[in-house]
Amino acid sequence: MSHYQQTDRRALYAVLDQALVAHLSIVRHGCPMALPVGFARDGDSILIHGSTGSAFFRDVAEGQEFCVNVTHLDGIMYARSLFDSSMRYRAAVIYGRASVVSAQKKEAALLKLAEHLMPQRQREIRPMTQKELAATMVLRIPLETASVKDNRASSPDEPNDDHSVWAGTLPLHVVAGEPETSSATQSGVAPPESVLTMKARFTTQ
Amino acid sequence: MSHYQQTDRRALYAVLDQALVAHLSIVRHGCPMALPVGFARDGDSILIHGSTGSAFFRDVAEGQEFCVNVTHLDGIMYARSLFDSSMRYRAAVIYGRASVVSAQKKEAALLKLAEHLMPQRQREIRPMTQKELAATMVLRIPLETASVKDNRASSPDEPNDDHSVWAGTLPLHVVAGEPETSSATQSGVAPPESVLTMKARFTTQ
Repeated sequence: MSHYQQTDRRALYAVLDQALVAHLSIVRHGCPMALPVGFARDGDSILIHGSTGSAFFRDVAEGQEFCVNVTHLDGIMYARSLFDSSMRYRAAVIYGRASVVSAQKKEAALLKLAEHLMPQRQREIRPMTQKELAATMVLRIPLETASVKDNRASSPDEPNDDHSVWAGTLPLHVVAGEPETSSATQSGVAPPESVLTMKARFTTQ
Repeated sequence: MSHYQQTDRRALYAVLDQALVAHLSIVRHGCPMALPVGFARDGDSILIHGSTGSAFFRDVAEGQEFCVNVTHLDGIMYARSLFDSSMRYRAAVIYGRASVVSAQKKEAALLKLAEHLMPQRQREIRPMTQKELAATMVLRIPLETASVKDNRASSPDEPNDDHSVWAGTLPLHVVAGEPETSSATQSGVAPPESVLTMKARFTTQ
């Protein structure tokens, strides 16, 4: 994947801003351990949140080194050999140490996170309680050591190929289906603006 | 995420068989390092491949402990509080050490991998060369220490909620777009069976 490394900050931000989930890896007792986590970019850092009861998050909070991966699988590239075939993807990797967001700044950070993961939703629902805030840890991860790779411009063609054999790419996209209303929602209550906005974002072009 | 842990082997296999990409984490020089990799399940193990020139893969091949994550983001669960909101997902985590597939078994393992990542494609293209085989390393990772979580049956409803507020889930799916023919493919050559089969697999229900 080393051919496509980019250091462009905007490219990094775009890969992060279009994703909802990252994989966060740490070293625990000498062994690698990784989990998927929801995240949001906030300026030149990313925010993640977890339970204060989670040993994994406490380890991250203690300033352990971590690795964060954000990957978009954009398609399957069919070359004319298995060797040259590959995936179309965009991938960001971030290395560093996290810091705990202070109690004073925690609510603002959680609202920032929520606005990325569920835009506009906070206007439709009750505010967070002090108990909920206390049970949640928010970590800030600087984007100091970060790289992004994007091979969308690459071609599966090789000069010596037999060009009578089809080569190309099957693009893959994430799309939203119809909102599923929960059974305890009063009848007649329609999916709100927040859900319709997110649905529109995940629509094929 | 601990509420949804399952030990059912079939559930683990289903999560793996429906995915193309995993995140593979190792410890390098005391720090976590993770990369996205294409993979396939082969019985009670998974196969990954990489370049023999990759320091990352050589470290994995040397029997270092690793963590493999395979995550499907299936939707966004809108509860009536930010605290209870979450993602709908299926996620597998595998811990262990990899072994290098021997030279004698390498080609069969690569064809197994290819059949998962690009079903039927190997019939349409030239065979691998000895040089290509020599440049590729295949690793087998046993599914001995593996767990799978699936929260698709969970609801965003809480007993004390105001049920006049909408709650529910926005489902997310991966879908394929129209195949993009590479510029060096002779005109008139249509996307082959392999690509059409994969396109049909990634179609919304």
